[in-house]
Amino acid sequence: MLHNDTFLRALLRQSTDYTPLWIMRQAGRYLPEYNATRARAGSFLDLCKNPDLATEVTLQPLARYPLDAAILFSDILTIPDAMGLGLYFAEGEGPKLERPLRDEWEVRNLSVPDPDTHLSYVMNAVSQIKRSLSGSVPLIGFSGSPFTLACYMVEGGGSEDFRHIKGMLYRRPDLLHQILEVTTESVILYLNAQIAAGAQAVMVFDTWGGTLSTPAYQAFSLAYLRRIAEGLTKQADGRRVPNIVFTKGGGLWLESIAEIGFDAVGLDWTIELSDAKARVGEKVALQGNMDPSVLFGSPEAIENEVERILTSYGPHPGHVFNLGHGISRFTNPEHVGILVDAVHNVSRRIHKKS
Amino acid sequence: MLHNDTFLRALLRQSTDYTPLWIMRQAGRYLPEYNATRARAGSFLDLCKNPDLATEVTLQPLARYPLDAAILFSDILTIPDAMGLGLYFAEGEGPKLERPLRDEWEVRNLSVPDPDTHLSYVMNAVSQIKRSLSGSVPLIGFSGSPFTLACYMVEGGGSEDFRHIKGMLYRRPDLLHQILEVTTESVILYLNAQIAAGAQAVMVFDTWGGTLSTPAYQAFSLAYLRRIAEGLTKQADGRRVPNIVFTKGGGLWLESIAEIGFDAVGLDWTIELSDAKARVGEKVALQGNMDPSVLFGSPEAIENEVERILTSYGPHPGHVFNLGHGISRFTNPEHVGILVDAVHNVSRRIHKKS
Repeated sequence: MLHNDTFLRALLRQSTDYTPLWIMRQAGRYLPEYNATRARAGSFLDLCKNPDLATEVTLQPLARYPLDAAILFSDILTIPDAMGLGLYFAEGEGPKLERPLRDEWEVRNLSVPDPDTHLSYVMNAVSQIKRSLSGSVPLIGFSGSPFTLACYMVEGGGSEDFRHIKGMLYRRPDLLHQILEVTTESVILYLNAQIAAGAQAVMVFDTWGGTLSTPAYQAFSLAYLRRIAEGLTKQADGRRVPNIVFTKGGGLWLESIAEIGFDAVGLDWTIELSDAKARVGEKVALQGNMDPSVLFGSPEAIENEVERILTSYGPHPGHVFNLGHGISRFTNPEHVGILVDAVHNVSRRIHKKS
Repeated sequence: MLHNDTFLRALLRQSTDYTPLWIMRQAGRYLPEYNATRARAGSFLDLCKNPDLATEVTLQPLARYPLDAAILFSDILTIPDAMGLGLYFAEGEGPKLERPLRDEWEVRNLSVPDPDTHLSYVMNAVSQIKRSLSGSVPLIGFSGSPFTLACYMVEGGGSEDFRHIKGMLYRRPDLLHQILEVTTESVILYLNAQIAAGAQAVMVFDTWGGTLSTPAYQAFSLAYLRRIAEGLTKQADGRRVPNIVFTKGGGLWLESIAEIGFDAVGLDWTIELSDAKARVGEKVALQGNMDPSVLFGSPEAIENEVERILTSYGPHPGHVFNLGHGISRFTNPEHVGILVDAVHNVSRRIHKKS
């Protein structure tokens, strides 16, 4: 029994009384209580791998704000870690992999990890979070996209120019396709295991697809995203499990992204929501898309931007409010409260008028 | 007397026998001769401020490859430096400013530098390069866009999240407009002084405009670019001086960018050239747009990508080939030769067929 299913209904373009919202990276470093738990955990990785602590931080933003969904607290590189590439965190930097894929034999040796053995800590976290939520709001499971995971797997970490993976793409496309094949299969099994463990919606983060040319995006990211859409479990506990795809910087390709079979498409803040809506029509719901930097602004600027975005979408069903990227660690938590209230209040007014 | 005016003709959408090309950052660290000169100079800044050395490195890529234009060797932050903000280079990092603008009084104190006194080293480099080129190919002058310069001026350097300037944008838009007013006036004077010193085309690099939302881009970048287009000298030595604007990540806004009065619009590699052309019609020439990472690929991959891009544009006038971003320091110089030959050969074939 789910008390607030506004988020799931919006993803399926069913009517709602207001626009639901959640915030990418809502359990994160802008919250003092998160930093306290993380300090207790030791490292970020310990936090991800301990279901009690992962549950604790997942619920923290929901205790502060009336958000309409919870999202599993985990890292984007759990799959490469389960493949044996050795996830670690260098102080003050993003996630890194000890053994990036550079040689052909390393690529040939890659295999699909069994989510219920190699990633059982994630499934335990999903079940425990789900129990703790007691049906208050839905729980979102997530994974990186095959191309985004491959970026980390080949570069060994974040990158400014992605020269190793792009070098492979333009020199040995067969090797990159091999990595993407194995990773795609892994993502499907991983997300379906999260759904089996209790996730009520799933999202695929294609953080780096937007760094590709149009034909390279189609061949090396979109084609594999399509296979994920096909392979995902669509129904669980007698209810549709909606799925969301988000290619950051993918605004130019919106029509193609809307056609691969996901229920909803995430948008970054560079695109106007009214334009996006006109371009996708009734095909998908849309999720986004406020610049996280607006939260550095004045309360008035936050309220004005919320009003602008919600008005741009209008009173139609099928919009989930979110930021266009993860919330910054430098955000004032009070400003998040202003955002959440503004989205709920303004959207109730817009939905009533219709 | 200009021996090869193909580049200038293409920018004005006049017919040419082949598609001219130059390469963003063509005088750069991928060339061993550049690294040798830079080692002799001491620092990057010494290289920029010494007209003899700036001339030497500007000409180096032209000695290797039959490129169709030279571009002034300089830094993007010469204007903020001339404003007194203190340009320096931390080892292994991009340019930084010692005294970023954070307080209102710092913004209020900002004034337009006189290019002929505070930036005379740039004008000396332009004249000297122009003399050394002896009319072989045209010389391009350049500047950062007001918004891009403001990013550095407020952040104090490059940034992942631009939180200081965006904080200002959403908290004190009046202060940011004040910075942009002074910077716009400075850019116009700076580029016109380069034209007076001999630059035969000018380009404005809006490297960071693409990090803004659509309305913020229009108000804080595009509006000031329009004023630059209006303020630029259009004719020198009895010849049109074409101008180019390049907003990296601006593909979604192409129609608006094409309308502000520049002769040509630069494109990054995420957009299909045929789509870009369909969207701008006859309004502007286009410059771009190969992913610099293709140069990490095989010679065949480079040739295929050149063929794909040139075919996408077709036999029409108004295309200057370039990369969609500066060339990487990790590029094999032989691959640049393959690129240059492919662009000339393939485009001659395409132009002949028409």
